[in-house]
Amino acid sequence: MPSFTRLVRFLATDGNVYYGDANLPEGEADIAKTTKARIITGNIFGKHDVTDQVAIVRLLLSPLALEDVQTVRCLGLNYALHAKESNMAIPKYPVLFYKPVTSLSGPTDPIPVHALAQEGEGLDYECELVAVIGKVCRDVSEADALDHVLGYAVGNDVSHRDWQIAKGGGQWSLGKGFDGWAPYGPGIVSSHIIKDPQALRISTKLNGKTVQDSNTSDMIFNIRQTIAFLSKGTTLLPGDVIFTGTPSGVGMGRNPKLWLKDGDVVEVSLEGVGTIKNRVEFAGSPRSKL
Amino acid sequence: MPSFTRLVRFLATDGNVYYGDANLPEGEADIAKTTKARIITGNIFGKHDVTDQVAIVRLLLSPLALEDVQTVRCLGLNYALHAKESNMAIPKYPVLFYKPVTSLSGPTDPIPVHALAQEGEGLDYECELVAVIGKVCRDVSEADALDHVLGYAVGNDVSHRDWQIAKGGGQWSLGKGFDGWAPYGPGIVSSHIIKDPQALRISTKLNGKTVQDSNTSDMIFNIRQTIAFLSKGTTLLPGDVIFTGTPSGVGMGRNPKLWLKDGDVVEVSLEGVGTIKNRVEFAGSPRSKL
Repeated sequence: MPSFTRLVRFLATDGNVYYGDANLPEGEADIAKTTKARIITGNIFGKHDVTDQVAIVRLLLSPLALEDVQTVRCLGLNYALHAKESNMAIPKYPVLFYKPVTSLSGPTDPIPVHALAQEGEGLDYECELVAVIGKVCRDVSEADALDHVLGYAVGNDVSHRDWQIAKGGGQWSLGKGFDGWAPYGPGIVSSHIIKDPQALRISTKLNGKTVQDSNTSDMIFNIRQTIAFLSKGTTLLPGDVIFTGTPSGVGMGRNPKLWLKDGDVVEVSLEGVGTIKNRVEFAGSPRSKL
Repeated sequence: MPSFTRLVRFLATDGNVYYGDANLPEGEADIAKTTKARIITGNIFGKHDVTDQVAIVRLLLSPLALEDVQTVRCLGLNYALHAKESNMAIPKYPVLFYKPVTSLSGPTDPIPVHALAQEGEGLDYECELVAVIGKVCRDVSEADALDHVLGYAVGNDVSHRDWQIAKGGGQWSLGKGFDGWAPYGPGIVSSHIIKDPQALRISTKLNGKTVQDSNTSDMIFNIRQTIAFLSKGTTLLPGDVIFTGTPSGVGMGRNPKLWLKDGDVVEVSLEGVGTIKNRVEFAGSPRSKL
């Protein structure tokens, strides 16, 4: 069991990047509000120490360093109302696709929109509970599945519906895999703090207005079932990240459709974890540095 | 440019695992026949030395260590006759999906078939040219794309059609992502040795009988186009592995269908690279250690 409660990775005021255990202000539950953290040394998946040294947080980063993640799995259609709004049947088995590690980004990073993803319509948001694997698991039972989870974060499975569906030849990965299209964070709350990940409010605000508002209790395949299923004949590694699907309210499911535009601000929140807030930046637009 | 010609990773007779540059016997082109290799020290994607120290090869392993790979991309339907035998249209853009790094395995490793993948029909083979990225690339032009390739191998994109298509909810990854379902090797031939990767015979033998026999000249999206397209807005990292699609002749395209069975031996070959040979091992069968 990890000795930290809320894992953050951050740029400190001393100019260094650390893993740390967030020191949240009294009464505050959102990891995004972290101003101080106890520095963690060692291997976050193995032997490590939460030291007494406290660092001042300048900026929260993607909770895991790029080199600490090998595989990003995602579920599609894992909330009944979202399957319905997508005009898809309720799946009999978890619907699995992948994002590349380069799509992962941090809680305040921009969502870069490359020229290719500015073609056609359909830039969309998806708030999701993100489970991070902490221990090697293969053929794990549902009963034991959560013992293999390091903790939970909230993520945005940014998607371009045109590239995801029509132009992707039916395979969803292309339209969901661009650099920075999987922001997550603000940190990872240990699974010994969140004992029941299936009773958490999950929501999205677009430019301050709530557009998704659901609860993880509505998942079709809960996290135990998901991990047990995905580990059948497939080894899940420490640092593997699982996006567990989005509830209803995405832009594609609305009439009229609601697509993200340059400059839009998307906040996704998970109860007990916090909020990440990312701004859409079209490459080539005046404000973009891309 | 890497200083090696044919990168191999191997267990040596001294009991250690090394990266090395294969010393092929005179007149031999198949890396699988490597008996000696000059040991490489350092970072195979960066500063490294091909030393004068020669090691005796006991066993060739997966050409890249698991920790040296983060992303495995695959193309579907990238040969016209294969799209036809799959009853699918010729794609307008590359059709992208992913396998997890845990699916990668070596040139003589068994192909383990978990109980889940013994359900239903459809265990199939797919010989593919595998391109390995050697340098970070993003938004690379077709003209410059091959400069970012470390080299080429041959791989088998093992697939279970029932899980890939019907039970996978339309997403191909689940039915192609089991442990050991992406054997590749026998080594990686440097892109300064294979100057034209689009003129190589590629083939599969099942239990000694040829079942696929084509040429990489028949690809719909050649490797330059594939890398240029995949790098649009997406950073490709050193060690990223790209399976570039299979030609016609897969078991699914035959009448009657030809599915792999426990104990079958599949050899996939690429001209100028060599052959990998993997035996199908059903979990729970008498010979399986799984």
